[in-house]
Amino acid sequence: MIELALIGIGTGSPGHLTREGIAAMANADLILIPAKGEDKADLAELRLALCRDALVSPPPLAIFDMPQRGAANGYRQGVEEWHDAIAARWEQVIRDHGAMRPALLVWGDPSLYDSTLRIAGRVAHRLPMRVKVIPGITAIQALCAAHTIPLNAVAAPVLITTGRQIRDHGWPGTAERLVVMLDGECSFRHLDPQGVHIWWGAFLGMPNQILISGPLSEVADRIHETRATARAEHGWIMDIYLLDRCPSP
Amino acid sequence: MIELALIGIGTGSPGHLTREGIAAMANADLILIPAKGEDKADLAELRLALCRDALVSPPPLAIFDMPQRGAANGYRQGVEEWHDAIAARWEQVIRDHGAMRPALLVWGDPSLYDSTLRIAGRVAHRLPMRVKVIPGITAIQALCAAHTIPLNAVAAPVLITTGRQIRDHGWPGTAERLVVMLDGECSFRHLDPQGVHIWWGAFLGMPNQILISGPLSEVADRIHETRATARAEHGWIMDIYLLDRCPSP
Repeated sequence: MIELALIGIGTGSPGHLTREGIAAMANADLILIPAKGEDKADLAELRLALCRDALVSPPPLAIFDMPQRGAANGYRQGVEEWHDAIAARWEQVIRDHGAMRPALLVWGDPSLYDSTLRIAGRVAHRLPMRVKVIPGITAIQALCAAHTIPLNAVAAPVLITTGRQIRDHGWPGTAERLVVMLDGECSFRHLDPQGVHIWWGAFLGMPNQILISGPLSEVADRIHETRATARAEHGWIMDIYLLDRCPSP
Repeated sequence: MIELALIGIGTGSPGHLTREGIAAMANADLILIPAKGEDKADLAELRLALCRDALVSPPPLAIFDMPQRGAANGYRQGVEEWHDAIAARWEQVIRDHGAMRPALLVWGDPSLYDSTLRIAGRVAHRLPMRVKVIPGITAIQALCAAHTIPLNAVAAPVLITTGRQIRDHGWPGTAERLVVMLDGECSFRHLDPQGVHIWWGAFLGMPNQILISGPLSEVADRIHETRATARAEHGWIMDIYLLDRCPSP
């Protein structure tokens, strides 16, 4: 029985690696590193650097190109077909290397806005394989740590949502505190900024970390410009933010 | 300037410790271990065990009794006064030891349903001190990893909420997926179980981890009984669950 380890590696800081994450990397007989496609080349480099930094003698690394996502049959269908194609690629790499303990290094945590678990489920239908998940530090924790703030108001709920949800549906219902992920378009600009506070962060935990916080009405433009500049400079960006519409003093 | 490190240690597994968490523990000149009061003695023991397991020569440990929470002036006021009393105790311990790099080991992550950051803010008003947060694995990641499930449906929001919110207000609005924390009373029993799936976990990441999942209508009683038995056996319990009212197949 093959055991595929999905290892949460945090948001790019080698300090985010957990002891069980490092142990799982060391225990792997193959680490799959997707190098192209929608995953940026820089991220493949970062994964390689993490392996080399954390392990004295890293296991063999299989660096492989990711399939491209087709746009022909609509978004939903496109994603389904893309996941099928990625699963087939994983299966091929695992077979080619005869790996019994393959591992994948997952940005943040495998449970949060990540398709790795769903793709692994597809592979498990084609190979005698079980999946093991090692939790990792998410961008949510990294954001709050960097700003030295709690995620939640005392005993109050928090909604984790996406940029698209904000763009399409506005501020969600009665929520007072939102974490917004997967937002490539600074969707906070679609909200009424009155009374809203934002804590924004990019490249969290990395040397080039950027933090901006303040009343949304005052800092929205600065975040938008800073994000565009940083994205142009690095070729990619990962960012996240927390919004509160009745902040505690 | 004193630097107080709030170190997220995960949910009890030594494997949850991050490299920067271990480095921060090693760098501390005093680790504050609250031993009694609302914090259970077992948890103090677990923190001690984590220190000894992760560090060759742990820094001095200050084990101190926590103040009791007063019930005289209502819940809210009681918590405020209790936090003041805890802050005064921390301040005293830091002064007594002349600590310049004190640290606290925080269950899960300091940002999530934890009062440590708020108490540290009070101490920072009385001592020349800044606060540094090291993120940790939360029970949310540990729950999803243990069940090998994603937290969110594809591109969909997730609400993090508390047992009390569920008891007082029922299923929150249009949310489809909920993580429920701080629930000592199996508050899922107050919900209409029709079409709801639950993934429950206790002692996540520890040797005595317990997992139950299934349609809420079928497993609610079993979770309730299992929880009561485990709590009686250990003297305490930490648990969490994810609810979905239109689960994907």
